[in-house]
Amino acid sequence: MNRGRFITLEGIEGAGKTTAATFVLRWLREQGVAALATREPGGTPLAERIRQIALERGGEAVSPVTETLLMFAARALHVQNVILPALARGEWVICDRFTDATRAYQGSGRGVDPRLLDTLATAVHPELEPDCTLLFDLPAAAGLARARGRSGSNADRFEAETVSFFEKARAGYLALAKAEPNRFRVVDALAPLAEVERAVSAALSGLVHKETVA
Amino acid sequence: MNRGRFITLEGIEGAGKTTAATFVLRWLREQGVAALATREPGGTPLAERIRQIALERGGEAVSPVTETLLMFAARALHVQNVILPALARGEWVICDRFTDATRAYQGSGRGVDPRLLDTLATAVHPELEPDCTLLFDLPAAAGLARARGRSGSNADRFEAETVSFFEKARAGYLALAKAEPNRFRVVDALAPLAEVERAVSAALSGLVHKETVA
Repeated sequence: MNRGRFITLEGIEGAGKTTAATFVLRWLREQGVAALATREPGGTPLAERIRQIALERGGEAVSPVTETLLMFAARALHVQNVILPALARGEWVICDRFTDATRAYQGSGRGVDPRLLDTLATAVHPELEPDCTLLFDLPAAAGLARARGRSGSNADRFEAETVSFFEKARAGYLALAKAEPNRFRVVDALAPLAEVERAVSAALSGLVHKETVA
Repeated sequence: MNRGRFITLEGIEGAGKTTAATFVLRWLREQGVAALATREPGGTPLAERIRQIALERGGEAVSPVTETLLMFAARALHVQNVILPALARGEWVICDRFTDATRAYQGSGRGVDPRLLDTLATAVHPELEPDCTLLFDLPAAAGLARARGRSGSNADRFEAETVSFFEKARAGYLALAKAEPNRFRVVDALAPLAEVERAVSAALSGLVHKETVA
């Protein structure tokens, strides 16, 4: 049996990743591909508890390094207990955020040393990289307006951040995409939904085709 | 005002660190030294929640690397929000476990790469090392018998470990003490309580004296 493919969805708040994940899952199933949708931080019972600690707005200060360690601790649980077992069963894994998000948010957004991020990525998923990363790109102000319309006054620690923070994260994402053009597909998140869906299915059909042929 | 001293208490389960912490706190106060007792993993509201995740025995597998990241995430909160502010106020901090515990348990006990531990220690507490570390040493079987008598069937993930695991952790601790003889004081944890207390107060009186003179 072939190992499944690992597809990650990335982008700043309000980029439409959740809607896209639902579409990807349905589209893959229509192609006869068994797939699992999951998200980070979270995706396992313990990792979801770490997510709460990382995202909630409380009285206690959480430094960028602390945030980074929480993200990678949750990721380590997710990789070991959900992602690798599913890929080994031959399922595709559609993951809403992965290590690129930590590079964009904690690295470009908050200034955490990229060498620390490299070390942690190697320690936590030495043999796992996404087969394809869909980056949903849009200006920070537009994404934030969408995200805030959705979560209102319940915004988490990230949604409560400034436009300038998200512009840094967006620039970080675009730099990652530029550095790895084979892995990344940049999708215009402001385009009409039908167009976004066409871009997504076009990006994935190559992988599904390779799978069928192999 | 002088910065306070940072004193760590280390040793395997059942070594008597908790009893020693109470003694150290009382002894320091008798010397007129303002001191705060705290513990790891934990010591802040969010870090205590991370402690639960790291220690509880549940259905979900937690790898040695995951465990390491949780320990350092909790430590980052503890250093930033409790230890450094107290030291800056001139208080001494008496901490039950610190990075040496991660080196002994996750490093020597579970085989986590010491270079990863070095990187994390530098990221989380670049300018903080204990002024004195009291290592309470005893054979693993003796420590485990004490710890199990105390916690019964509520043993956490560490207390439920084997004698062989704790022997590796003990050997790790002794190697750390040998490598840094100026920082470590090894205390025979099987000695009568009065003798343990004499050893502890002897180890700390040098620091208190320096403080008074300075």
